[in-house]
Amino acid sequence: MGDVIKEKCGVFGCFNIENAPLINYYGLHALQHRGQEGCGILGYDKLENFILKKGMGLVSEKFKSTDFKNWKAKNSIGHVLYSTTGGSIECNVQPFYFNIKDDKFGLVHNGNLTNAHIIKDKMESEGSIFQATSDSEILAHLYTKSKETQRLDKIKSSLNVISGAFAFLLLFEDELYAIRDRNGLRPLSIGKFNNGYVVASETYAFDVTGATYIRDVNPGEIVKISNKGLESFYFSKNNFNNVCSMEYIYFSHPSSNINNINVHNFRVESGKLLAAQENNYPGDIVIGVPDSSTSSALGYSKQSKLPFDIGLIKNKYSGRTFIQPTKELREIGVRNKLSVIKDVVKDKRVILIDDSIVRGTTSKYIVKLLKNNGAKEVHVRVASPPIKYPSYYGIDISTYKELIAANMTINQMIEYIGCDSLSFLSIDNLKKLFAPNQGCFDIFTGEYPADIYDLNKGE
Amino acid sequence: MGDVIKEKCGVFGCFNIENAPLINYYGLHALQHRGQEGCGILGYDKLENFILKKGMGLVSEKFKSTDFKNWKAKNSIGHVLYSTTGGSIECNVQPFYFNIKDDKFGLVHNGNLTNAHIIKDKMESEGSIFQATSDSEILAHLYTKSKETQRLDKIKSSLNVISGAFAFLLLFEDELYAIRDRNGLRPLSIGKFNNGYVVASETYAFDVTGATYIRDVNPGEIVKISNKGLESFYFSKNNFNNVCSMEYIYFSHPSSNINNINVHNFRVESGKLLAAQENNYPGDIVIGVPDSSTSSALGYSKQSKLPFDIGLIKNKYSGRTFIQPTKELREIGVRNKLSVIKDVVKDKRVILIDDSIVRGTTSKYIVKLLKNNGAKEVHVRVASPPIKYPSYYGIDISTYKELIAANMTINQMIEYIGCDSLSFLSIDNLKKLFAPNQGCFDIFTGEYPADIYDLNKGE
Amino acid sequence: MGDVIKEKCGVFGCFNIENAPLINYYGLHALQHRGQEGCGILGYDKLENFILKKGMGLVSEKFKSTDFKNWKAKNSIGHVLYSTTGGSIECNVQPFYFNIKDDKFGLVHNGNLTNAHIIKDKMESEGSIFQATSDSEILAHLYTKSKETQRLDKIKSSLNVISGAFAFLLLFEDELYAIRDRNGLRPLSIGKFNNGYVVASETYAFDVTGATYIRDVNPGEIVKISNKGLESFYFSKNNFNNVCSMEYIYFSHPSSNINNINVHNFRVESGKLLAAQENNYPGDIVIGVPDSSTSSALGYSKQSKLPFDIGLIKNKYSGRTFIQPTKELREIGVRNKLSVIKDVVKDKRVILIDDSIVRGTTSKYIVKLLKNNGAKEVHVRVASPPIKYPSYYGIDISTYKELIAANMTINQMIEYIGCDSLSFLSIDNLKKLFAPNQGCFDIFTGEYPADIYDLNKGE
Amino acid sequence: MGDVIKEKCGVFGCFNIENAPLINYYGLHALQHRGQEGCGILGYDKLENFILKKGMGLVSEKFKSTDFKNWKAKNSIGHVLYSTTGGSIECNVQPFYFNIKDDKFGLVHNGNLTNAHIIKDKMESEGSIFQATSDSEILAHLYTKSKETQRLDKIKSSLNVISGAFAFLLLFEDELYAIRDRNGLRPLSIGKFNNGYVVASETYAFDVTGATYIRDVNPGEIVKISNKGLESFYFSKNNFNNVCSMEYIYFSHPSSNINNINVHNFRVESGKLLAAQENNYPGDIVIGVPDSSTSSALGYSKQSKLPFDIGLIKNKYSGRTFIQPTKELREIGVRNKLSVIKDVVKDKRVILIDDSIVRGTTSKYIVKLLKNNGAKEVHVRVASPPIKYPSYYGIDISTYKELIAANMTINQMIEYIGCDSLSFLSIDNLKKLFAPNQGCFDIFTGEYPADIYDLNKGE
Repeated sequence: MGDVIKEKCGVFGCFNIENAPLINYYGLHALQHRGQEGCGILGYDKLENFILKKGMGLVSEKFKSTDFKNWKAKNSIGHVLYSTTGGSIECNVQPFYFNIKDDKFGLVHNGNLTNAHIIKDKMESEGSIFQATSDSEILAHLYTKSKETQRLDKIKSSLNVISGAFAFLLLFEDELYAIRDRNGLRPLSIGKFNNGYVVASETYAFDVTGATYIRDVNPGEIVKISNKGLESFYFSKNNFNNVCSMEYIYFSHPSSNINNINVHNFRVESGKLLAAQENNYPGDIVIGVPDSSTSSALGYSKQSKLPFDIGLIKNKYSGRTFIQPTKELREIGVRNKLSVIKDVVKDKRVILIDDSIVRGTTSKYIVKLLKNNGAKEVHVRVASPPIKYPSYYGIDISTYKELIAANMTINQMIEYIGCDSLSFLSIDNLKKLFAPNQGCFDIFTGEYPADIYDLNKGE
Repeated sequence: MGDVIKEKCGVFGCFNIENAPLINYYGLHALQHRGQEGCGILGYDKLENFILKKGMGLVSEKFKSTDFKNWKAKNSIGHVLYSTTGGSIECNVQPFYFNIKDDKFGLVHNGNLTNAHIIKDKMESEGSIFQATSDSEILAHLYTKSKETQRLDKIKSSLNVISGAFAFLLLFEDELYAIRDRNGLRPLSIGKFNNGYVVASETYAFDVTGATYIRDVNPGEIVKISNKGLESFYFSKNNFNNVCSMEYIYFSHPSSNINNINVHNFRVESGKLLAAQENNYPGDIVIGVPDSSTSSALGYSKQSKLPFDIGLIKNKYSGRTFIQPTKELREIGVRNKLSVIKDVVKDKRVILIDDSIVRGTTSKYIVKLLKNNGAKEVHVRVASPPIKYPSYYGIDISTYKELIAANMTINQMIEYIGCDSLSFLSIDNLKKLFAPNQGCFDIFTGEYPADIYDLNKGE
Repeated sequence: MGDVIKEKCGVFGCFNIENAPLINYYGLHALQHRGQEGCGILGYDKLENFILKKGMGLVSEKFKSTDFKNWKAKNSIGHVLYSTTGGSIECNVQPFYFNIKDDKFGLVHNGNLTNAHIIKDKMESEGSIFQATSDSEILAHLYTKSKETQRLDKIKSSLNVISGAFAFLLLFEDELYAIRDRNGLRPLSIGKFNNGYVVASETYAFDVTGATYIRDVNPGEIVKISNKGLESFYFSKNNFNNVCSMEYIYFSHPSSNINNINVHNFRVESGKLLAAQENNYPGDIVIGVPDSSTSSALGYSKQSKLPFDIGLIKNKYSGRTFIQPTKELREIGVRNKLSVIKDVVKDKRVILIDDSIVRGTTSKYIVKLLKNNGAKEVHVRVASPPIKYPSYYGIDISTYKELIAANMTINQMIEYIGCDSLSFLSIDNLKKLFAPNQGCFDIFTGEYPADIYDLNKGE
Repeated sequence: MGDVIKEKCGVFGCFNIENAPLINYYGLHALQHRGQEGCGILGYDKLENFILKKGMGLVSEKFKSTDFKNWKAKNSIGHVLYSTTGGSIECNVQPFYFNIKDDKFGLVHNGNLTNAHIIKDKMESEGSIFQATSDSEILAHLYTKSKETQRLDKIKSSLNVISGAFAFLLLFEDELYAIRDRNGLRPLSIGKFNNGYVVASETYAFDVTGATYIRDVNPGEIVKISNKGLESFYFSKNNFNNVCSMEYIYFSHPSSNINNINVHNFRVESGKLLAAQENNYPGDIVIGVPDSSTSSALGYSKQSKLPFDIGLIKNKYSGRTFIQPTKELREIGVRNKLSVIKDVVKDKRVILIDDSIVRGTTSKYIVKLLKNNGAKEVHVRVASPPIKYPSYYGIDISTYKELIAANMTINQMIEYIGCDSLSFLSIDNLKKLFAPNQGCFDIFTGEYPADIYDLNKGE
């Protein structure tokens, strides 16, 4: 369980679908794990024009059945927002809707623009006003200031100004555009739904809504969806299949496929490779940190022949943890979220599989929990390499200072976390799970496929 | 009771006041009659910077006590929003907050800019994006695009571009600006509160918060409030005291004073003049349409010597009127809001005083209600002249077509409303209640003191 | 404005009416002034049996439109609850519903049973368990323990055990019973609604729902409403028309008629008699404490020929008054509820009409408010006699100690309240407003028509 | 996943603990899986006496942090309620609080009284009134009617009247009683918390709150907790350790221990025995129906050597399934709750482990889901015997008619469910998991350890 990793958002869109806002609701619900802070849906219908509903909170909290009863839209886009820092966060909830002189359109964005601050600075000097503090709005400003006259050309010219990681959906009255950056850092897939189309950050949302997967949007591609069906354009010539490896390791739903690789299978394989790195380690049981590390634990068990078991359980009723006056009461709040099956771990040498380690605080807590419940030894095995570099592409990993692997040796980490041994999947093994020259491993290697501009982040 | 007259909003601001957001809450509460659709408060504090809370609903619904417990701001501005037409209304809730390159500020606006569509069109052609569908945001865009370098000059140059009716409050980190258009169409007053200042659309808000009235902001004036106290500037040379006559007739709270004239007294006097127009009319009792016409009814009674009585009562618990399947159930919803004291009106010749008539539907309903409860005759007397012209300054009177007095003769109106006689206060008598060459009577005379640009409204 | 007088509740029932729960909603809404603490509706329908919805809060807060969409009941009873003291108040919200061996029924109650504690004690000794802390539940316990075999006889025998003030509605599957105590202390009227019937604490609820008044339930009468129409029975032989005088003076809506006397007219007449007591008192204007004293003020003005004016206005948007840390902030909360029109009272000798005085604190506050706003003199005239005795019949007047008129001379009261003179309507004049030997004047005279048992209340 | 099995409630109590209501909140939260319909907490404090908060909804929905800020109680009891049928359900939410002549106490109950209807009938004939439609209130009525004079004797005599399954907590001002029926059908355990005690339906609640397990309450035992510590009494001489086997099979949290047997381990063992029944069945993978069947699937895999995998995932964000007009939209709602990892099941012979089968509808749905996602064969293995008899002890299994195993042969079930084979754990194997002569297997065998009276249930 990556303790502070948070992914920037999920997107879902509908085109030519009856009850589009409701289908969008279910699509967003399936993407809820990508962002729990806010959500919204923008629908378009000839009679009622654009209607926007958005706000803070979970999809199931924000929307009510009555929201969908008379909402006639056949086209729509939606968004789930991850938690951001700072105060007036409500302004960042998407979709953004723009009603300008001759054009009306909505926009949702998953990713992070690396030159956002430079473009924003320049535009503000020229008198533009931004409502949100996030970077997602920039595309609309570029679009409205574009010198081109045709919509597609305006979009292309705008996309060529921005750098970084992005999956965009743009909804005009008669067209839906699905766009992915030239490195394909963030996933985006297209599905068929009756006579219409859906677009989603993850294919799991197709399973839930009953859509049929067609294909992924390609890196550098603009897929235009209209009454003519799908049309493909490219805003960039040199494109690369560098999907973010953390999508497989941590973010995505196990049911999802990215580039036709299943996420659960990826994790099982990573667990096998991890076990193969050090044959015959003498553990008694293999357990995973729920929920995201269970698949890797299973893989580790298969390879090592050590028995897989369920030693940690996540509480499915997400309780409010009230701010408490005493340490004792605070600890109850944490215990409430994760529980140990004592009989499973007692007197055992536990191989604890975690998908990734960021600050190490969660690992430290879990190791202590296991030992308090009688585990003889706890050996932490991480199904990804040490995270040593900051992310510039939309993962919320703050700074060097907080990255335990960037600041400690293995032995120091073992001491900090309180485990008996610790090892990570090697970067070479991680790369084996990708086709040659594919994947982005930035936070593990410091190699950034898309240009970055904000270099002080890592300091 | 003007049946579709709705006024655009009320504003309240605090400078150098402990618990400013809470004082602002009470101030807005006192202005609630100026707008029930939405509300918001923007507070500034050195530590926490700008914090904004706003949304749809009444002030007492939107804000909770916990909102104010830890909100340390000493400066603030707030707004109550009247109902607008159309869908995505939430974007129009004020204050607006702008965080641009070198400047952070908030803005609230009461009024209507007559050349908004022209300026907006031009700015959108140049690539500016507006979030709200209302006109209030324009000032901020003009400000950020101004070629001037000093804040005050930027404000002045921006104000000189816009026309129409406006009372603006602008809150910067260290300064609060209170601004009134050159005709003084919308009211705005300044008060003292301990060592600080408050600014409000109506002086009633001073009574409620315990502030002491200092003076009105003058037409064309910019009052800058800072740690130096009040400083006065003018953005316009030719200014006129043309406060909107409807402020006295209908909008403002009876306790408020505008240009040092009390609203209740104004209404009493209008009732006297109305009675004086036709001496010795043989009614049995004088009753007013609650609540805004009670003062005029009292004046009419004083002058005519006919006894004043209470024949109509407004229900003080504002019940939800659910959408109903049958006519019978719908009528209950309406009856719920206004009730007749049968014993008062039965077998009487009722002089019914109404402050104004717009579409005539409410008058028609009340006359029917009185007759159903036994009134022998109902003579409608209106304490303002016939409304024959559209408003361009922020009153929600839609079009010529809906204005009963623009489309019918007195006899036609009598027939439509179902009353036994009908007369209006003459425009000359209305003008007697103002100082010479003061006041705006646009909707009665078609004379518009501020330039108007959208001439198709009246068609 | 009686400062701590609170009346115990209002009731409304429907029989053989389409959408009965919705009609009941509107009926309760019209009775909202009788109790703002809680409310509820019990509906009966053959298919769905009894359905009960109740809770704390105003009628318009507690019920939503969706509550009524599929609620098919044709019979129903409802209740509005006044504020009670003590903690677990929710258990007292009515209707109460009882599902016992062979009988299902609901009950609502307005009034106070004077021997409740004695009956309750006895029943608890025998093992009965009461859910509510209020007395209203007792009737159901007596009913279920009755030795009689017929429903009507059970009801009669139960009613003969209880003493005090009561208006009861009992809803069985096929019958609705409307019951009034033998002194008729609490009002209860019957109306016709299409082919069915409504019953209400006040006739104003008939005006609102569109029902037609038939007659009052008589003292000591049980009106049985069934498919056979109305049938009349008496549980008591010696009955008296002793309706509580405070119903006219303070509780009831001005539109309501009780015993065919209109409440507004009663108050106007009380104001005339009050003025007639002291001819030619030299005031400049007469103003009433809104809203309940306006009618009396009008009467005083008519008789005295002194001009009536509006000097105090109640804020119609009932704002939350947050608990505040400082005296200054607390005062804002109070000011928020009532405002003075300075120009009306300034330099005037004000005759201030109040309907009644209990503890004197509100009068004291208003006198101060008027003087702070420039009133030269304030002469308080009370349209009812001094309250010197506790109530045992359901008015929330706590104890002797709190009753200002029971503890002070006129001069002491003048000093405490801060007014320039003070006088009350004489008891003889009050009685003139009733038919001979009718009316209950208990709190003014100490004469109690119904037996009382709890004598330590007045100490 | 037992498709209609619902367990009746969970209980949690605190004695002599700082912030007892908050600890109770966390305790109930840990028991949330035992009842999601309603919840409540009753706290006792010398100053404020008893305070009760309860209502419909989840623990985390019903309670807010402000509920606990000033709630000083050191003793408390709480309850989570499972879903009941019928309308006026709110009356069944516990704790029940009774304020009778000389005694005040609260009560929570988990279980089902088999002679409730007989006792209730009798008491109602004698005039008692029950507020709730559930049976839990009966104990209080027996208590108040008891002829005994001492509290403990009253409790004992009351317990001797009732039959069936129960775990009761009774909270008096100074004492907390924890009681378990003579067969020990429902679990109840005692823990230490600082200087005080907690009592809970499951030991998992001790893990969450940080309490230390002491022992289970014994069958037929009354544990009295007071300032003297724990005291043990028995209301019955012949007691048996017949804990409900479904507590292990389905209801309880995997972390919990009942009679010192861990629930997860129990399930693993049941899976092993199930596999051992039919050696060498040729499946490719073993998957469990999440969440409750995962442990059994793991056991099955261990014994059979067939690989365990994760093929079904439960959505952790429980979305609202809106009532939908079309079949297509309804299906989305269901898909939303459970998803398949296609790559895991495709072309595989799947051994699907389910903990129990009631009506068979869920099994049917899951088999179809797996086959639609490419599973070659689906072999359903159930980790408990066929359910052929109704429950009288608080499990919500309605009637014979709905029990698939009571009405179909294995082959008919295979056809209905659509699987390729089906087998159940034998009753002999289930019994091996219990000590000799322990456990209740009523719904599997029709043998009922506690007397039953309502024999028409099974028809």
